[in-house]
Amino acid sequence: MTQRLRHRKKRSLPLARVYRLLEPGPVVLLTTAHRGHVNVMTMSWHTMLEFEPPLVGCVVSNRNFSFGALRSAKECVINIPTVKLAEAVVKCGNVSGRHKDKLAAFGLTALPAAQVGAPLIAECYANLECRVVDARLVAKYNFFVLEVCKAWIDPAVRAPRTIHHRGRGEFMVAGPTIRLRSRMK
Amino acid sequence: MTQRLRHRKKRSLPLARVYRLLEPGPVVLLTTAHRGHVNVMTMSWHTMLEFEPPLVGCVVSNRNFSFGALRSAKECVINIPTVKLAEAVVKCGNVSGRHKDKLAAFGLTALPAAQVGAPLIAECYANLECRVVDARLVAKYNFFVLEVCKAWIDPAVRAPRTIHHRGRGEFMVAGPTIRLRSRMK
Repeated sequence: MTQRLRHRKKRSLPLARVYRLLEPGPVVLLTTAHRGHVNVMTMSWHTMLEFEPPLVGCVVSNRNFSFGALRSAKECVINIPTVKLAEAVVKCGNVSGRHKDKLAAFGLTALPAAQVGAPLIAECYANLECRVVDARLVAKYNFFVLEVCKAWIDPAVRAPRTIHHRGRGEFMVAGPTIRLRSRMK
Repeated sequence: MTQRLRHRKKRSLPLARVYRLLEPGPVVLLTTAHRGHVNVMTMSWHTMLEFEPPLVGCVVSNRNFSFGALRSAKECVINIPTVKLAEAVVKCGNVSGRHKDKLAAFGLTALPAAQVGAPLIAECYANLECRVVDARLVAKYNFFVLEVCKAWIDPAVRAPRTIHHRGRGEFMVAGPTIRLRSRMK
């Protein structure tokens, strides 16, 4: 019941608007599922590569347990947390999923995705279901090119207080929004 | 004299710390120089790829005038502005450098870099001199891999109020800093 309620809060987000969530550079939680093993890792090294279909490039180190799952299953979900989840975000970044169910351990709820095997994290205000579409730079840089095939958002969250990693446990929390006359997309 | 003073404020930043400036995802100003033509463009699609030597991946669209300069000269400078420069950042993003000296027009001061032909922007609190080291994904995604070979920072700026593009003229301004116990680099 709780799960269903949490899921219902989210709406489908048009894919053309995905870049507006990732371009500001928030820390995200990447979920994978491979051979029945669900995992989550903290990730800050990502960039948009194309507006639509939305392409995202990201680094998942081969030292991370998620690397093998992402390379094999070729699917993942990018979950975007706000500052409310900062403690869980740090814990996910400090512990390997090799011997631990991190989602359960850190109070995160896995919900089924629509198009991929990896789960959505209910507590994150946005979730982007992704498929790996280009692995040419994986060998050299651990760099995966993902296509976002389905996006979810909590419409109640207008100016998300995302967190942005400055390294060594230091995070910048999203501050005020300013609007300027711009022709930039 | 003014130029010299502005330059002197900056200190050399150890390359191992470069990721701490870019990982939070700020909007940056990319400068190039090619055949005597200096240009600047606004850029938000970038990510760290490696800590040290610092590698940065970024998208410079082939619709941008800077694309040709970056591909030919294989050098650039990533300049990181704070909210004080927001108006200039938007102007740089809205106008092509094909027929305009954008730096001068928007009140930005070009200073010589130490290792590359592209200039540093004095008014930005940090400047990263870069060389293109991998162009394999340029044809498909306009994605350049840069190595930062020299970094400068204004040591007076502790918690820079960087700006983060949310699209359509909307920017998130860096808010408060929080510190959490973390083993993440």
